Amino acid sequence: MAPIIFTKVQLHLFTQAVFKKCGLNPADSILAADVLLAADLRGIDSHGVARLSGYVRLWESGRINMKAQPKILHQTPSTATLDADEGLGLIIAPGAMELAIEKATQVGTGWVAVQNSSHFGIAAFHAMLALPHDMIGICMTNASPLVAPTYSKERMLGTNPVCIAVPAKNQQPFIIDMATSNAANGKLEISSRLQKPVPDGWVQTTDGRGSTDADELKKGGSLLPLGGHKGYGLGAAVDILSAVLSGANYGPWVPPFVSFLAPLDNLPGKGIGHFIGAMRIDAFRPADNFKKHMDQWILRFKDAQRTDPQQEVLIPGEPEYRMTIEREKNGIPLNENVVKNLQELALKLALTL
Amino acid sequence: MAPIIFTKVQLHLFTQAVFKKCGLNPADSILAADVLLAADLRGIDSHGVARLSGYVRLWESGRINMKAQPKILHQTPSTATLDADEGLGLIIAPGAMELAIEKATQVGTGWVAVQNSSHFGIAAFHAMLALPHDMIGICMTNASPLVAPTYSKERMLGTNPVCIAVPAKNQQPFIIDMATSNAANGKLEISSRLQKPVPDGWVQTTDGRGSTDADELKKGGSLLPLGGHKGYGLGAAVDILSAVLSGANYGPWVPPFVSFLAPLDNLPGKGIGHFIGAMRIDAFRPADNFKKHMDQWILRFKDAQRTDPQQEVLIPGEPEYRMTIEREKNGIPLNENVVKNLQELALKLALTL
Repeated sequence: MAPIIFTKVQLHLFTQAVFKKCGLNPADSILAADVLLAADLRGIDSHGVARLSGYVRLWESGRINMKAQPKILHQTPSTATLDADEGLGLIIAPGAMELAIEKATQVGTGWVAVQNSSHFGIAAFHAMLALPHDMIGICMTNASPLVAPTYSKERMLGTNPVCIAVPAKNQQPFIIDMATSNAANGKLEISSRLQKPVPDGWVQTTDGRGSTDADELKKGGSLLPLGGHKGYGLGAAVDILSAVLSGANYGPWVPPFVSFLAPLDNLPGKGIGHFIGAMRIDAFRPADNFKKHMDQWILRFKDAQRTDPQQEVLIPGEPEYRMTIEREKNGIPLNENVVKNLQELALKLALTL
Repeated sequence: MAPIIFTKVQLHLFTQAVFKKCGLNPADSILAADVLLAADLRGIDSHGVARLSGYVRLWESGRINMKAQPKILHQTPSTATLDADEGLGLIIAPGAMELAIEKATQVGTGWVAVQNSSHFGIAAFHAMLALPHDMIGICMTNASPLVAPTYSKERMLGTNPVCIAVPAKNQQPFIIDMATSNAANGKLEISSRLQKPVPDGWVQTTDGRGSTDADELKKGGSLLPLGGHKGYGLGAAVDILSAVLSGANYGPWVPPFVSFLAPLDNLPGKGIGHFIGAMRIDAFRPADNFKKHMDQWILRFKDAQRTDPQQEVLIPGEPEYRMTIEREKNGIPLNENVVKNLQELALKLALTL
């Protein structure tokens, strides 16, 4: 059961080839592969190539349009609402960020609400696109319902992640990219695979009782919001900004990622929704000045008194940066089941992994 | 030890009078009283008139300028950076929101970073100013360091609250207003007064060991971030947007609220910082359409399956709204110590409570 190591290039070429087989154009296939591989490199294994066959199945069931022509429904100098035309979230989100950056270049900030999209991979990839422009990148999305509000046992919200990426000067950027539930689904899957219980506060049963069973979601249970009612409020705010503002589906109406579950009837919107923003640093203060202070912020926090002398204090984004260096060098370890899944995909599409 | 009941009008008139004695002009004194009373009405007792004498002491020690002339340091069509001239946060923040609303009216969204300010009361007051304009209001601030980053035992961040206020049509607005620590300082004070232990995860000792002692902060301990490392990241993001972007002090350099503690030397910025934004709904989709969907969102979440049939599922902002109705009608109960403190203040300033 040892993981099998692949190079980034191997997986990138394969992923590109898969998306091309689905009818995505070559440039977008490369971009989509960039997004999935960014997750694998950063150690967010649940959002990398492990999801590739999921996207393919959504395409097969007609729920992703690989020839999508996104269009701007409405705009002002600092905002836009985008209809993603049922496109692949992995490429829709970078396009939305490009538009946000363009608007920020013009008027200081840019904010793009996206409807009619699909799963966009890791939020950090899209938010980080703002960094080379000396902008702060913000990215969030709603997702299929798995999380129960406080006092409820019903799945009403996705794990609705939010990412904020902030450039520094000589230090690595500050990047927070977090689900608004206590645990992301991927972490449950890892515990399930190892047949280990999960910590208190991650999941509850269908009756709303606390549980430590890593398979509770498969039994119809729900995830719990980050730190109780505050996480419910945060996840709800992400849902509202991503979907009520854009005209996408929200709450329990968000279409499931898995192709074998059909969306509900009487949907209040279109597809899933994202909310993406870029803020030009020098719309507030000179960028170089800001970035020097970010360096000082980072160095001071790294230097905070440790609880355990052996355990350093980390900056948000630092573990993922280190993992990227490590995996760029030593390769990406894939779980046996993921490899099997990719091999089946290769066979089906007449490709070689 | 029963609380003493005051009417909103009594406390509002007294609070106005106190601020006038400090040299604040009449209109701003009314506004400052509005902000403090909004906290008391909403049930956020730690941020209401209980803090009044704290503001007075900061003014006495020369750390709040009641004649402040805030000025715009830099701006673009959608952004501004404001130097608050050491003004009273309670009135600086509404002014910053007014500017954000003005910019949003022009170009869709407005974002104002504020430096050189002081404690602004509850974030919800300022964010909610956007609601009558059919805008989403966003408001955050940094604060004196009490929260330790993950793996640290040092106080490095404030409880750094963030508020998002969203208008609905026939339903009450959705308002999330939360500290990014597991517990706000005020909640510890309440447990301390009742000599009750606090839940696991709220505080740690100076050595970084978990504690349930409600007086742990007084012993030099620290608060813990919401839900672990995610709350650390969120609180850090609030610090960066409020202070690194504006040119205020950040992290451990944020000046303490209490006047008997002096700010540190070699400060990297000026005063404390806020970050305030307004987004025009109809910069994304027609406001009426949006608000109808917000009503549907709210009604669907209120209707989510309950864990306990007796305990309804609440919408963020709903408990505070109900408390406001209740206290508008039946008065505001103040703790004996708070009343004593206000009476001393009355005596000192030759006023009648």
